[in-house]
Amino acid sequence: MRFARFDLDGCQSYGLVEDDRVVPISNSPFERWQSAGPALPLERVRLLVPVIPPNFYAIGLNYAAHIRERAHRLGIAPELPTRPEPGYRSQNALVAHGEPIVLPADTTSVQSEGELVVVIGHRAKHVREADALKYVLGYTIGNDISERNWQKLDRTFWRCKNSDTFKPMGPWIETDVTLESLRTTVRVNGKSQIEFRTNDMLFGVARFIATITEYITLHPGDVIWMGTEGASPDLRTGDVVEVEISSIGTLRNMVVAGQLPCAGAPS
Amino acid sequence: MRFARFDLDGCQSYGLVEDDRVVPISNSPFERWQSAGPALPLERVRLLVPVIPPNFYAIGLNYAAHIRERAHRLGIAPELPTRPEPGYRSQNALVAHGEPIVLPADTTSVQSEGELVVVIGHRAKHVREADALKYVLGYTIGNDISERNWQKLDRTFWRCKNSDTFKPMGPWIETDVTLESLRTTVRVNGKSQIEFRTNDMLFGVARFIATITEYITLHPGDVIWMGTEGASPDLRTGDVVEVEISSIGTLRNMVVAGQLPCAGAPS
Repeated sequence: MRFARFDLDGCQSYGLVEDDRVVPISNSPFERWQSAGPALPLERVRLLVPVIPPNFYAIGLNYAAHIRERAHRLGIAPELPTRPEPGYRSQNALVAHGEPIVLPADTTSVQSEGELVVVIGHRAKHVREADALKYVLGYTIGNDISERNWQKLDRTFWRCKNSDTFKPMGPWIETDVTLESLRTTVRVNGKSQIEFRTNDMLFGVARFIATITEYITLHPGDVIWMGTEGASPDLRTGDVVEVEISSIGTLRNMVVAGQLPCAGAPS
Repeated sequence: MRFARFDLDGCQSYGLVEDDRVVPISNSPFERWQSAGPALPLERVRLLVPVIPPNFYAIGLNYAAHIRERAHRLGIAPELPTRPEPGYRSQNALVAHGEPIVLPADTTSVQSEGELVVVIGHRAKHVREADALKYVLGYTIGNDISERNWQKLDRTFWRCKNSDTFKPMGPWIETDVTLESLRTTVRVNGKSQIEFRTNDMLFGVARFIATITEYITLHPGDVIWMGTEGASPDLRTGDVVEVEISSIGTLRNMVVAGQLPCAGAPS
């Protein structure tokens, strides 16, 4: 099944995507739900970020070639992690499929990272690796937009990874996924830039869930971005970036230039 | 005004705290609200975390003595940051005033960090430092529980700072605060361990809001934990930790030992 979150004339709802239509459902896929209303053409609705995660985990170093490329860029020796460790992203940065990635005026090197995103379906603590996938509702796609200059300059990832619009996620949550058969492709303006076997991770989905839940409760709607392979070219205003993961879908966003700041005090 | 979030017989509500009573309000302090119902004795209700933040910012290095102590502990040279940079915490770890801090069995050095917490009241982007405090609803208190061994071992703060129950926050949100006059006191079992002028920060509240909103939209309910001064002793099972900030209140939590894991697959 494919769960999308969408807006129709100002009303927000979840729905089941079937081919080029979406059937609204009651509640959300994280609760009991049932079909609610006639099918709508997908082109009639505006897709939203498929879930606003209470907790937003991201794995920075989970693919060998990406780690070697990063070490080269930073001028350090590549070192493969010996155990899985999640970092954090923040929901302010999320945008949906089709929404623009807005580059602040002072960015110099902005790159794409195509990532498999795990969407948690059930509360999970002290989970064994063999049971871990039972807690997953499904999978969506993330584009971990990264400003490489700030990533080098700053002590934390606050602006290099979490500036507004730097976390496109979508287009929907797919529940029927065979991890071993997935392929991730990152395209810029239609041209493939990176392609890799999605499951070629140092630490897989089940291992991460088992590790995190030794100390941390995972909650329905939490997401885990599983990291990326390789390196993308720098993005420029006007570029269209696509992250496709086979059998899930394609997340497509255009890069635009930021407006000049225009602030007003709250009324 | 003092806004508390509380549970009364399974119903959750916001209310206005007046002395030892709480007057329930409609909606939340982030919306239009009005008094709704008779005052209740505070002892009749169970205080909840005063807000579940959509985005959870935390300033690691914002007081000089804490930075020197940390450098000494890690065997590195102390270096004061030259610009403000937020990190992230995660809402899974929040517990309310009065709820236990649960130590996983494999912790070895767990410490307290008493922190002023800024609660954002209005959407904010590109805010000037002179206007920044207008976007603040009020202030509460945080205890940034930290496992020092994991902090040294791990690449990220996932378990040293974000293990379940490691982020006590409360008891309520105080809106009438003069930052310059605040004092923070951390007590363990009634004995003062650390005391400092809360506003002796390297970078103050207004400066942080102005900096963050250059790239990031702050949303109503977002919190910024402003960092801590000094160092606390290691906590032990049975300890009662209090963080008091004058004119806001006292956040009190007991330290308890974790239970053995008892997992079951979701039904």
